[in-house]
Amino acid sequence: MPDNSATDIRINRFSTKDMDFDERLNALLEWEGVSDATIQRRVDDIIEAVRTRGDEALLEYTHRFDRLQATTMQELTLQPEVLRDAFERLPESQREALAAAADRIRAYHERQKPTSWQYTEDDGTVLGQRVTPLDRAGIYVPGGKAAYPSSVLMNAIPAHVAGVREIVMVVPTPDGVCNDLVLAAAYLAGIDQVYTLGGAQAIAALAYGTETVPRVDKIVGPGNIYVATAKKTVFGQVGIDMIAGPSEVLVVSDGGTEPDWLAMDLFSQAEHDEDAQAILVSWDPDHLQAVEASMKRLLPSMERASIIQESLRSRGALITCRDRDDALALINRIAPEHLELSVADPESMLSGVRHAGAIFMGRHTAEVLGDYCAGPNHVLPTSGTARFSSPLGVYDFQKRSSLIHCSPEGASALGKTAAELARGESLTAHARSAEYRIQRQ
Amino acid sequence: MPDNSATDIRINRFSTKDMDFDERLNALLEWEGVSDATIQRRVDDIIEAVRTRGDEALLEYTHRFDRLQATTMQELTLQPEVLRDAFERLPESQREALAAAADRIRAYHERQKPTSWQYTEDDGTVLGQRVTPLDRAGIYVPGGKAAYPSSVLMNAIPAHVAGVREIVMVVPTPDGVCNDLVLAAAYLAGIDQVYTLGGAQAIAALAYGTETVPRVDKIVGPGNIYVATAKKTVFGQVGIDMIAGPSEVLVVSDGGTEPDWLAMDLFSQAEHDEDAQAILVSWDPDHLQAVEASMKRLLPSMERASIIQESLRSRGALITCRDRDDALALINRIAPEHLELSVADPESMLSGVRHAGAIFMGRHTAEVLGDYCAGPNHVLPTSGTARFSSPLGVYDFQKRSSLIHCSPEGASALGKTAAELARGESLTAHARSAEYRIQRQ
Repeated sequence: MPDNSATDIRINRFSTKDMDFDERLNALLEWEGVSDATIQRRVDDIIEAVRTRGDEALLEYTHRFDRLQATTMQELTLQPEVLRDAFERLPESQREALAAAADRIRAYHERQKPTSWQYTEDDGTVLGQRVTPLDRAGIYVPGGKAAYPSSVLMNAIPAHVAGVREIVMVVPTPDGVCNDLVLAAAYLAGIDQVYTLGGAQAIAALAYGTETVPRVDKIVGPGNIYVATAKKTVFGQVGIDMIAGPSEVLVVSDGGTEPDWLAMDLFSQAEHDEDAQAILVSWDPDHLQAVEASMKRLLPSMERASIIQESLRSRGALITCRDRDDALALINRIAPEHLELSVADPESMLSGVRHAGAIFMGRHTAEVLGDYCAGPNHVLPTSGTARFSSPLGVYDFQKRSSLIHCSPEGASALGKTAAELARGESLTAHARSAEYRIQRQ
Repeated sequence: MPDNSATDIRINRFSTKDMDFDERLNALLEWEGVSDATIQRRVDDIIEAVRTRGDEALLEYTHRFDRLQATTMQELTLQPEVLRDAFERLPESQREALAAAADRIRAYHERQKPTSWQYTEDDGTVLGQRVTPLDRAGIYVPGGKAAYPSSVLMNAIPAHVAGVREIVMVVPTPDGVCNDLVLAAAYLAGIDQVYTLGGAQAIAALAYGTETVPRVDKIVGPGNIYVATAKKTVFGQVGIDMIAGPSEVLVVSDGGTEPDWLAMDLFSQAEHDEDAQAILVSWDPDHLQAVEASMKRLLPSMERASIIQESLRSRGALITCRDRDDALALINRIAPEHLELSVADPESMLSGVRHAGAIFMGRHTAEVLGDYCAGPNHVLPTSGTARFSSPLGVYDFQKRSSLIHCSPEGASALGKTAAELARGESLTAHARSAEYRIQRQ
């Protein structure tokens, strides 16, 4: 039902011509998800307790934080039939939509699979690169209101496609409340084990293992500040995915897209939470005016109107730019998580885009299609990290090993170079190890 | 010249049949490069100072830690001709060896370049993945005795091959001492800018930028505990490579390799530093005996004998295993940085190897060939992190963006699935954004 408490839109209006544009844009984009020293200390304590006391510590924390009275880990373990039952209990339309999404996500990620390769040099030396899956992956799924079944699919399916042997999911169930859609998604995605654990204690269990929870090789999935801090802390002991900030979209419109469509695209980003960021850029000021009018008209009908209102007020913006090139400069400055090119010929802009997590091309490609079912992953680099990182993918659940197989001739030739360089670095054992393999003429 | 202070080898002898083998192996492998709270606090202070005071803070710290009296950043900047001169000053044999290594490293990494791809579905919807290079990479090169020109090549060449626009190197020069080989390698590898900065202050400068040092998108390269702590702290603001632990090798021998060769292979690992780890495994106990005898005989002739002696005593081992399968289990348990398969038919073992940074196959392929010039990268996952991470590669200097371009028909079909799932997650704006794109029948 509509949320009538929010009745008007206030959104920042910038122009790239403004004298103080850079400053204002920087302030708008600023985001630091740093945890303070108190949180770090609490997280360190929890990790240490789980490392040293295992299951016992997990039961204690789950009692304290999620108010579960479990006395054995078995009570915090969801059996496979619980997942299957949850799937079968869903209304048919939801079951079908979830299965359709899973199929498309699987099909896209199948294309991502890299192949091992090798080549042989003239002297018989073989060099190559071998790709192998992780043994075991851990997936953190938040509980409560931010429990998204689509995230379960997006995190687990690439692991499956990568060939990971065992996928372990943790999901907190505060006060024992389970989300059927989340469990159904776990069933569809082929999760092997589920524990109803959350917070830093769940991360510690996955990183170090306990009597019950197996140690994994990599932990992925979003979580609150305790989860993010714990992931950052155990990084090195296990692999982790990126620490995600609030979700964001940058929409570029040439003025030809229905203002109502764009208003709803911005709302769909803003409704996530108050920190979510929705920005629309256009070189057509009248069009920006029309979108703002649509937003004002549509807001009162929205169920999450007050979240939308606050998100747009504090972190949203309508930006007037000079032209396409100016828009491109802005895209590359922001390096957005989601980029909508809502223009007549998105291909012509694409070559100028250097940094973006996912690129939604054309007026029909709403970001929301990618959130659920287009196929590509919805776990994307946020807060400008698309400058250096990628969507979650099959590659996150695999690793590479270099192969070197020298023929006697190859080892002899390479040995001379290696010995020369080793002596330059004063590493004599290195040099002599290479020299043993040099053939006498 | 030989280091005569070290005259005998003491190395751990284990058998996989020992009752307490697991325990002893775990103790041997244990390594935690964690920095304590004091180091973290100092690093936090340095980062904060560089963020807020820029060049001024860099000059202060460089004075304090490296004893350089520079009053302008220009004095901490190495001009391109300085690098070229260093290269030209080298003896011809070193110049040629360095160039040969650079050529082979480049050739191997060229094969690693991934390609963008896309495919079109029946309804005209296009999905794909676009690969683009980072704009700017930062390379940390340690100063002093651990300054390795080979590391400069191994870190910079993949960035170059990836298409990175600008490569910035930092290298501390305590008391103004520069290493000609390092500068020559920087010249060969096509580094764009070099600053004589080190420690946490250099990492902070690369992560946030100062008036002089440009902000980079990713920082790679090894360093001491301050550098490692600083890298971990700025992770998220910029990308980083793995935090490296001590270097290690696991050699598997079938008993057919010259004992002297294997002894020197172990020495070449052990001579790095006292924490380096060299382990030899064989199912032939007499062979292990013979290798130990070679080590005893060869040790007194080694220049870094006392480092070798200490490394072997505290972290080395000769392990007797039952057979090949037992050796494979050990390999996958250890997930070594370097794996030497010094056996007659290494191919037959390869399929059983699940985790290793680089695999050196056959008796002639000494690890040292890979350290310098075989072609594959020598920056490899240490301390068991080969379970989930990969050699440094071209892929570390690129990122992917997902492409989604829905046809009107595709957007209509996907819109129905997306709207169903969005309503299941109570995200109504998401649902309505999708529904606008559903075509009326």
